[in-house]
Amino acid sequence: MTPQAITDKDIADLSPGKFRNLVRQGKWKDVTTNACRGYAQTNLVIVPRSLAFEFLLFCTRNPKPCPVIEVTDTGVFQPKFSAPDADLRTDFSKYRVFKDGELIDEPADIIQYWDENLVAFLLGCSTNFESSLRDANVNFRYIGDNNTNIECVPAGRFHGTMIVSTRVFKSSHDAVRAVQITSRNLAAHGPPVYIGKNPDHIGIKDIYHPDSFSPPEHIRPIEPNEIIMCWACGVTPQIVAINSKISFMITHCPGHMFVTDKLSEELAVF
Amino acid sequence: MTPQAITDKDIADLSPGKFRNLVRQGKWKDVTTNACRGYAQTNLVIVPRSLAFEFLLFCTRNPKPCPVIEVTDTGVFQPKFSAPDADLRTDFSKYRVFKDGELIDEPADIIQYWDENLVAFLLGCSTNFESSLRDANVNFRYIGDNNTNIECVPAGRFHGTMIVSTRVFKSSHDAVRAVQITSRNLAAHGPPVYIGKNPDHIGIKDIYHPDSFSPPEHIRPIEPNEIIMCWACGVTPQIVAINSKISFMITHCPGHMFVTDKLSEELAVF
Repeated sequence: MTPQAITDKDIADLSPGKFRNLVRQGKWKDVTTNACRGYAQTNLVIVPRSLAFEFLLFCTRNPKPCPVIEVTDTGVFQPKFSAPDADLRTDFSKYRVFKDGELIDEPADIIQYWDENLVAFLLGCSTNFESSLRDANVNFRYIGDNNTNIECVPAGRFHGTMIVSTRVFKSSHDAVRAVQITSRNLAAHGPPVYIGKNPDHIGIKDIYHPDSFSPPEHIRPIEPNEIIMCWACGVTPQIVAINSKISFMITHCPGHMFVTDKLSEELAVF
Repeated sequence: MTPQAITDKDIADLSPGKFRNLVRQGKWKDVTTNACRGYAQTNLVIVPRSLAFEFLLFCTRNPKPCPVIEVTDTGVFQPKFSAPDADLRTDFSKYRVFKDGELIDEPADIIQYWDENLVAFLLGCSTNFESSLRDANVNFRYIGDNNTNIECVPAGRFHGTMIVSTRVFKSSHDAVRAVQITSRNLAAHGPPVYIGKNPDHIGIKDIYHPDSFSPPEHIRPIEPNEIIMCWACGVTPQIVAINSKISFMITHCPGHMFVTDKLSEELAVF
């Protein structure tokens, strides 16, 4: 019997534990956008203990791009709070390794890089709020991720500009609902950082050519009555690692997130 | 001309800058409950840089008792974000100094204790949410602060139980409004950690004899239809300092808070 390919539809119905097992066994190597409907997904940042205070301070000062869901104790790769059975060295389908601000590897696990001196940060991600918008029948289209001229508040060696993810809304009603709904989920970047018609105000030079990991193939022209909104994006720490020439940082590869045991709604403010 | 005594009514109408000047000059030595109506007040924790990561992690893991409003850079005593003109060494009317888990001093300033190796944490406080409740005509009475059996999530050397502040509500309507209103202000401890009739469930042994700094003189018996709610309290780090025998920590003296330049509403979630 030939094993059948696992589809996006299959992984939507899996429990987080079962999905993480697939990833750990190398049976799911793709992006996680559609995995485990309703469960909170997270971004990843791992730094040595010597950088951990400065990075946690960076997150505290920049909670929109870096909403902290969990920080492990030094050397611990199980996230006790959000998924005690998981292994952060293997349960992302693709990682990125940065050394002195350069991307040096994109491995499928980080067993060889892990050591007892590392601290792992799980940060909220926009996958969660996109499904909250859909659950509320909010009509929008995703345009892509963009670098901006918004300077994050620096902390120690960590500094750089904020990456945002951009969405376009057809009606004022949809835009207002999106502000309300995302304000409830601070663990998924919270409310937008920009709302309006001129995203060049925050340094987005060409909205039709985003800096995304996987931009939409064709971006339909934005119509005069459409409203543009930008949310802080969890790729920000990766740009910060490059700009700040951080000596060592491991992150997830954009799109390849970690699925926790917590429902998105469990992490909502109210 | 004899200088007149400054009253609670006088300080309610002062700007934060003018009030901090009074405190700095030793002209206001009392509690700050009524100072600068509408402005956010904060608690204080100062630890050496060597303990700063563990304490920030403790705050991250326990955001209800320890909601971080600002963390200064190492050695910096001006809170750049919340009151750039202030001086954290002089602008509280009374401090507490803990050494190896013992209270060793309650000075009016900490000039003699400050050094370039210290990190200051400003943490949200319940003064702000009490005024939000009053602004919404929510009827309640404050009963006192109590130690509980709720264990904070430990972080490094920091561990201990949560202190709560207890209030009693006459009607379901008032209790529901209080949950809604405090949920908006996560920087002021957020929503309650207990709601019900039996606070012994969270280890409060005798609600009529609270562990407060300044308990009400006489607590009227709680009536059968009244609802008890407890909020995480900013005195928690002081109990943690004692329980964990932290080598060095400076805090505010309970009731003697710092007045920031931020309106409480500026810090609300939405």
